[in-house]
Amino acid sequence: MKNKNYYAILMAGGVGSRFWPVSTQDFPKQFHDMLGTGDTLIQKTFNRLANLIPKENIFILTNERYNDLVFKQLPSVAKRQVVLEPEMRNTAPCILYASLKIQKENENAVMIVAPSDHWIEDETEFTNNVQTAFEFCESNDALMTLGIAPTFPNTGYGYIEYNNSSNNKIKPVDQFREKPDYETAKSFLKQGNFLWNAGIFMWSVKTVLNTFKTNQPELYELFKSGYSTYNTEFEDDFIRDNYSKADNISVDYAIMEKSDNVFVIPATFDWNDLGTWGSLYDKLGKDQNNNAVVNSKTLLEDASGNMIRSKKDKIVVVDGLKDYIIVDKDEVLLIFPKTKEQDIKKVLQNVKANFGEEYG
Amino acid sequence: MKNKNYYAILMAGGVGSRFWPVSTQDFPKQFHDMLGTGDTLIQKTFNRLANLIPKENIFILTNERYNDLVFKQLPSVAKRQVVLEPEMRNTAPCILYASLKIQKENENAVMIVAPSDHWIEDETEFTNNVQTAFEFCESNDALMTLGIAPTFPNTGYGYIEYNNSSNNKIKPVDQFREKPDYETAKSFLKQGNFLWNAGIFMWSVKTVLNTFKTNQPELYELFKSGYSTYNTEFEDDFIRDNYSKADNISVDYAIMEKSDNVFVIPATFDWNDLGTWGSLYDKLGKDQNNNAVVNSKTLLEDASGNMIRSKKDKIVVVDGLKDYIIVDKDEVLLIFPKTKEQDIKKVLQNVKANFGEEYG
Repeated sequence: MKNKNYYAILMAGGVGSRFWPVSTQDFPKQFHDMLGTGDTLIQKTFNRLANLIPKENIFILTNERYNDLVFKQLPSVAKRQVVLEPEMRNTAPCILYASLKIQKENENAVMIVAPSDHWIEDETEFTNNVQTAFEFCESNDALMTLGIAPTFPNTGYGYIEYNNSSNNKIKPVDQFREKPDYETAKSFLKQGNFLWNAGIFMWSVKTVLNTFKTNQPELYELFKSGYSTYNTEFEDDFIRDNYSKADNISVDYAIMEKSDNVFVIPATFDWNDLGTWGSLYDKLGKDQNNNAVVNSKTLLEDASGNMIRSKKDKIVVVDGLKDYIIVDKDEVLLIFPKTKEQDIKKVLQNVKANFGEEYG
Repeated sequence: MKNKNYYAILMAGGVGSRFWPVSTQDFPKQFHDMLGTGDTLIQKTFNRLANLIPKENIFILTNERYNDLVFKQLPSVAKRQVVLEPEMRNTAPCILYASLKIQKENENAVMIVAPSDHWIEDETEFTNNVQTAFEFCESNDALMTLGIAPTFPNTGYGYIEYNNSSNNKIKPVDQFREKPDYETAKSFLKQGNFLWNAGIFMWSVKTVLNTFKTNQPELYELFKSGYSTYNTEFEDDFIRDNYSKADNISVDYAIMEKSDNVFVIPATFDWNDLGTWGSLYDKLGKDQNNNAVVNSKTLLEDASGNMIRSKKDKIVVVDGLKDYIIVDKDEVLLIFPKTKEQDIKKVLQNVKANFGEEYG
């Protein structure tokens, strides 16, 4: 029997534009079966959380335009569980808003905030780590996070510096560090007490709301002023009228970096943010020439290290390509070197500028 | 007013498998707008012949399975003008059969036999060349052909060796030569009296039928035995019962190589058989980096010499490819080096063997 006080907020409002042309504004990454397993990323994430958390306590935080996608892909989810941002803001406003709704429903709630579009290998270890954090949050006034042991000096992630003086599984956090340059990242790895910030947070609803009240009093008052409407028929009107007044700030900046009761558990599961085609490639099975293929039926000659994706069962014939991203959709074909994957955002901007916003 | 004795037979039964995946058994090359001009190849060819020949005298020789495509793409064509092979044979049987039908309709006919899937640049010169041949055929017992001045020692074409002793526009043919090896082809070009055989023939119906009677008596008797049924409601039954008895031989072998009344006019128009993606590439307009694009909206970076084709207005993003054939269809994507274009036939065989006949 799962603990009725356990809650989750699944963050599902982003777009993942480096996964263009598969990920688009109308149909972002988390709603795609990026790994070709039969489940979309949000389905996988929901099911992973449901190992520990009652399904009816998993809230989906997303943009209005993805409402239909959420209900279609997660048919067990009720309307009550879908929290819609009327416009794009950063993470702090929507997490605060959802936390107030949860508090009104259950003031003893402990909760996890997690991205809906990451890949996690060992689900049992993930569940164990979250369980450990939840138990700590139930009895401590703590803001918690899961940190990922860095495998190389990645300059694309934020880092968490923790106090390594005890052998306890739960480490006090000294500070959050912005995305570093390469030399700084190397020094982080050398020091050994740095973890990647995967954007996974855990706390009791009581602690997180107190922290917002202290550190972001204006934002807190804005959303608190609608408290009487939450979980009622008047909520939508209040949110529509007030959401745009919220500051556009991240939860990291709004509360985590400003608090001294932050703790981290070094994750014991394998993690990948699936941020780019290359990171997806790393996680997929490969053929004997290290080509990763999703959905396509391929005939490959002198082709190695390629990431190939098309609609289901499309024939893809490739001769003579090495380390390419080959992604085919109905309206867009992308043939792009894997080494330049960070430029796909720029390509998308060019495509939109030249051919119209509808392609992004 | 066009000459009522002028006739044409458009050969439209082939497949063009080196143009896979665009050209397929169900929808061969001649029915595609390969050049992106708005007309399919058979439409262009029909209109070119109609400059000289009354439209109602242009017959389309094709396979039963392309009947619907012909009527759809050539709506002015009547049922009488479409001559259907019930099964694939080489060119001699169907040309003999169509010639007998034309003879029964007009014994003074002079006619051209021409492929439906070639590209010809200067339509006025083409018309002039055919007019010259027709006038010669009206007053001479001659089998005529148009030959193309070779621009390089192509080993993929047959050659016509002609007698260069007079300055007459019309040259007596000494012999037809099979596809040569490279050294032989080079010697042909050096000698100077060799032309490419483009499969374009002109003759009076009287001459060609006499030639068949003399050189292929069995084949002639087979089709002559159905003469009373031709152009009547009984024709279909006769052809269905007898066509499979015909030898599978080419018109070149059946009559041209065996006759001594063969003449050639060196063509004064620019010609291309559009036999491969590379030859199509040669004929298309190019961007500043020599990329030829049909139908696609492209965003090309560090990309040159490529032949790119997709459905209309599909976005194609390519970075870092040189001299590639990139052809995208609904069910098939081909990314293949232009230098290996002759291997596309093999690729097609592999695709059919691995994934099913329906892809070819």
